[in-house]
Amino acid sequence: MRIPATVHTPPFNITRASHAVWSVADLDASEAFYTQVLGLVVTAREGDRLYLRGVEEVCHHSLVLARRAGKPVCDRIGLRVYQDDDLDRAFEHFSKAGLPCAFVEVPHQGRTLHVSDPLGTPLEFCASMPLVERQLTQFHTYRGGCAQRFDHYQLLLPDVAAAGDFYMGLGFRLSEYMVDASENPMAFFIQRKGNPHDIAIMNGPGPRIHHVAYTTVDVHTLIQACDVAGSLGHGRKVERGPGRHGPGHALFVYFRDPDGHRVELFNTHYLTLDIENAPVRWDPSNIHRNLPWGLPAQRAWFEEATEFAGVPLAAPSVKPNPLTLERFLMERA
Amino acid sequence: MRIPATVHTPPFNITRASHAVWSVADLDASEAFYTQVLGLVVTAREGDRLYLRGVEEVCHHSLVLARRAGKPVCDRIGLRVYQDDDLDRAFEHFSKAGLPCAFVEVPHQGRTLHVSDPLGTPLEFCASMPLVERQLTQFHTYRGGCAQRFDHYQLLLPDVAAAGDFYMGLGFRLSEYMVDASENPMAFFIQRKGNPHDIAIMNGPGPRIHHVAYTTVDVHTLIQACDVAGSLGHGRKVERGPGRHGPGHALFVYFRDPDGHRVELFNTHYLTLDIENAPVRWDPSNIHRNLPWGLPAQRAWFEEATEFAGVPLAAPSVKPNPLTLERFLMERA
Amino acid sequence: MRIPATVHTPPFNITRASHAVWSVADLDASEAFYTQVLGLVVTAREGDRLYLRGVEEVCHHSLVLARRAGKPVCDRIGLRVYQDDDLDRAFEHFSKAGLPCAFVEVPHQGRTLHVSDPLGTPLEFCASMPLVERQLTQFHTYRGGCAQRFDHYQLLLPDVAAAGDFYMGLGFRLSEYMVDASENPMAFFIQRKGNPHDIAIMNGPGPRIHHVAYTTVDVHTLIQACDVAGSLGHGRKVERGPGRHGPGHALFVYFRDPDGHRVELFNTHYLTLDIENAPVRWDPSNIHRNLPWGLPAQRAWFEEATEFAGVPLAAPSVKPNPLTLERFLMERA
Amino acid sequence: MRIPATVHTPPFNITRASHAVWSVADLDASEAFYTQVLGLVVTAREGDRLYLRGVEEVCHHSLVLARRAGKPVCDRIGLRVYQDDDLDRAFEHFSKAGLPCAFVEVPHQGRTLHVSDPLGTPLEFCASMPLVERQLTQFHTYRGGCAQRFDHYQLLLPDVAAAGDFYMGLGFRLSEYMVDASENPMAFFIQRKGNPHDIAIMNGPGPRIHHVAYTTVDVHTLIQACDVAGSLGHGRKVERGPGRHGPGHALFVYFRDPDGHRVELFNTHYLTLDIENAPVRWDPSNIHRNLPWGLPAQRAWFEEATEFAGVPLAAPSVKPNPLTLERFLMERA
Repeated sequence: MRIPATVHTPPFNITRASHAVWSVADLDASEAFYTQVLGLVVTAREGDRLYLRGVEEVCHHSLVLARRAGKPVCDRIGLRVYQDDDLDRAFEHFSKAGLPCAFVEVPHQGRTLHVSDPLGTPLEFCASMPLVERQLTQFHTYRGGCAQRFDHYQLLLPDVAAAGDFYMGLGFRLSEYMVDASENPMAFFIQRKGNPHDIAIMNGPGPRIHHVAYTTVDVHTLIQACDVAGSLGHGRKVERGPGRHGPGHALFVYFRDPDGHRVELFNTHYLTLDIENAPVRWDPSNIHRNLPWGLPAQRAWFEEATEFAGVPLAAPSVKPNPLTLERFLMERA
Repeated sequence: MRIPATVHTPPFNITRASHAVWSVADLDASEAFYTQVLGLVVTAREGDRLYLRGVEEVCHHSLVLARRAGKPVCDRIGLRVYQDDDLDRAFEHFSKAGLPCAFVEVPHQGRTLHVSDPLGTPLEFCASMPLVERQLTQFHTYRGGCAQRFDHYQLLLPDVAAAGDFYMGLGFRLSEYMVDASENPMAFFIQRKGNPHDIAIMNGPGPRIHHVAYTTVDVHTLIQACDVAGSLGHGRKVERGPGRHGPGHALFVYFRDPDGHRVELFNTHYLTLDIENAPVRWDPSNIHRNLPWGLPAQRAWFEEATEFAGVPLAAPSVKPNPLTLERFLMERA
Repeated sequence: MRIPATVHTPPFNITRASHAVWSVADLDASEAFYTQVLGLVVTAREGDRLYLRGVEEVCHHSLVLARRAGKPVCDRIGLRVYQDDDLDRAFEHFSKAGLPCAFVEVPHQGRTLHVSDPLGTPLEFCASMPLVERQLTQFHTYRGGCAQRFDHYQLLLPDVAAAGDFYMGLGFRLSEYMVDASENPMAFFIQRKGNPHDIAIMNGPGPRIHHVAYTTVDVHTLIQACDVAGSLGHGRKVERGPGRHGPGHALFVYFRDPDGHRVELFNTHYLTLDIENAPVRWDPSNIHRNLPWGLPAQRAWFEEATEFAGVPLAAPSVKPNPLTLERFLMERA
Repeated sequence: MRIPATVHTPPFNITRASHAVWSVADLDASEAFYTQVLGLVVTAREGDRLYLRGVEEVCHHSLVLARRAGKPVCDRIGLRVYQDDDLDRAFEHFSKAGLPCAFVEVPHQGRTLHVSDPLGTPLEFCASMPLVERQLTQFHTYRGGCAQRFDHYQLLLPDVAAAGDFYMGLGFRLSEYMVDASENPMAFFIQRKGNPHDIAIMNGPGPRIHHVAYTTVDVHTLIQACDVAGSLGHGRKVERGPGRHGPGHALFVYFRDPDGHRVELFNTHYLTLDIENAPVRWDPSNIHRNLPWGLPAQRAWFEEATEFAGVPLAAPSVKPNPLTLERFLMERA
């Protein structure tokens, strides 16, 4: 497999994965779910838009819910750059690369640049948001999973290698990756902020967004999110876990929100700041390394994901071959 | 459904479920599993027998492993009575009831009475064991799941109602129970020590022992047991969970040991000491109450269990209708 | 030291320490403190009385707050007997012993017997309370320390030996005890419910109640109680801990409520059901065993306690010699 | 107070605080302490040097213990730069600034640059170390506090303002700071890796190193470190905590190692990657904000620290006025 080289002097300074925008059918139902089960904090609700953030976040929002009829979609995923003039360098970089991009006005964000990656994923970059209060020590307001901060999103893309070329060309470093038996890349975990990933790219029909992920305090709050989901009647929305990831090593649980969007809670990652940290290779056929214990995910976890608004899907050239719960149960029977 | 009345002046004073004896094929493999993954402490290994206890237990053993070829079985389950003369009253009680019973010598136990319940389950009663050191504050010796103390066992019996009559006639109190749509009793959770159960009796071909259960410190040590299982290559032995019980409310995880015997780790229960605590009724068809969140157990959890040495199985008159993972996945597909 | 023998056939069946009644100056302030910081649930507020219980309790109350001007006091501590006719046997027993006792009407309790122990401690016994809902699985309502259930109280009494005679004469078993260098008993930890204590009796001017204690879920909720106390401005009410007890082994934290009454939160204890469990002897001069790590308690923890309404204090014949924080700091300086 | 401006284009790219070198009297005693209580992993022991790392670290070492007679000192604290040519830029930068610096050979480190900061603190910079195995998922090897990774060190320096000028001139960003009543800077918390601090600079006689800090998994492992310290007889080395920091918000505990060097364990911090994150100002006289709950530190925590080998101490121009435990106890008496 060809592993894209990291560009050590990126064209502009991306600092982290920052936010996402979901469309939802019922803003009240979604607000209840995200604040009670996940424990997100409402920064503002303005007309058809709800702005949410984690308990440690001082940025205005990391999840935006937009009420809209029709199939639930993701409007756009957001990334932060360090300083405002990084946006100008980004504009120049994307323009040279032939990717149409434009500065737009987005409420509660600094100057914002829209562009789509070569696979069609709609991205937006900004350097700042209005500062709001850090709720981290307002312990009496903690709820459910006590989601702390937005950490990453996972994309399903039809060409993992091409996506890797694009993102690592922007300065992303590869922390872990998976290849199939024929050495085709099946997953790239790439990062800018120094932990295992800002973006997880998986092979699949896309572009689609598989999930957004928030950190939680510890295993207790992870289970508490499940328990609160259960006691509020959302227990069937605990789609996968609690379990332990092979790649990334985090303890995780996946929820489906009222519109079917997927959200992961996980506890904290390791650091990947040092230059000598070589990308870790995973063989997805080794169940012991990829799934240290417990049962694999059900088929829905592998197959269902949120499409991006107005973006057509492409099939991947390489078929994924995940170990699903159904296969596992069949093999044991 | 007929709920057996509790006898408030039992014929003799049973204090708690106390221990079990498994046969195993390989004592080294079993010792490694129980000490590293579950965190049990070895009291003694003598010839073909290994004596284990939880970190808080001062009794000599709560789990005895006996090396023996052939199908893994359970030799006997143990109960404690309060004082030695309770054994004489027990002998008298069982003799009157026409149940053959006998005093036997058992290593590292006080005077021990053998009897089988009317369904054929081999029981033994004793009032005391030799005292050994409580390891509870030897924190540097804690391992894996830090199993603290033997709490209960679950039996599969072909006649739940008859079993209830027998055990509640010995002074067991009913804490929770399940009935099917026709009001047939499917499960009795009965206790002497003041928490939800010493014995869980489930409807099924039997007598068989479904699992023994140890308490663990908290959710962290529960997950730690899974993680250690995973890092030692026993990850596929995490058969079910972590999850939350409906009845009993505990957080649980089930392991299969190297011979397939099942062991549950769970965090602590609520008290059921007060006379006004009415038995709680559960309807197993209500998934939201029985399974607050996550996925149901796989078929093996419902169907596989350990037989008692030399005891023939009987089929239950009422067929259980459990919600298995397979059914759940089918219904969603 | 003379260790009182346990009476194996007690005159009546006490099952556990059950409740306490504090006087408080401001019912609103106390309700806020106990529900937000400790996480108790309000069963009822009727006029000047507030009835509280833990999240797992189905009894009507385990803590009663009575608004009243003047020095904050404890009106009475409560114990449960198993069945109603145990109350009659109790009446007979106390009458024979020359202790004046009387049946009284107490709201939301079954028939209730009042008596004072030989040291003057006002006790009440009842067999039942009205059943209310168990909130244990209403996880979305959990707050602060998630206090689960009333476990025990600690008394300061001027004659530990005499108190031991009285309570062990009622069937209490001694789990742990402390003696001074002259073998004078300084503390008795006694129990009926099968864990280390229902009543802790310490040597000191009394009778006074040093604290009531509730169990909490685990170390996470213990710290959460502190954190919520801090974020609500009650941080200075965290009087001692978090720390680890030598005797009893529990992880603990002590709070002072708005009137100065002391409440302990601790995680779960070990079982002491077996007859062979010999009382554990502690030498309070051995700091390594009594205080496994961290700093000793400050002087206030040893000296301040709540008096009982209208009960005069007596000085103990033996002076306690606690290792206080002040002494510890002096010795290190 | 003058808050030094952050240089957005630093002269070379420092990525994080990386390691420290202590002298110790007894390598066996220190190895036992650090591996059993803190849970560090031994990478190598070569002659008089012991190389330790956290369970998630793939770098060769983050703590080096060097056996040597005499007063225990710190030889040097280490920082990482991103790439090897950052070292050349660093050499140029320090040379221009008139700070003598030199490239040296250090075992198990890439090319290493030695320099002292203007206060005399001996620093070393390197870009890489040999890669070793990440033990993060070797859960069966976890011990005590399960120290995960080196996070930061705290220095006592006689001129906080001058130190701020120097380090922020290297690209460090200020996350939090304290001033006294006269607006003199008393503490700067500065960072490169995107969490609250790589270096904490406190006002005091110096240069001295107050502590090094490792992250731990969660509150459970924090307490486990204390419990293991206690059960191994190191309980009096738990100098402060467990408690909650005001600035930084982390849950912490401080240990003194066998030579008196101080080590902090704490759970994870919040992110400070965004440009709009303004430094947070703390007023050390506000106990409610600086010490959310519990008791202040004892005098030793404020006054004792490790000197650097051969570096003379200077007194600070501004006297610190910490709230010590002694003062707190006096004020309450």
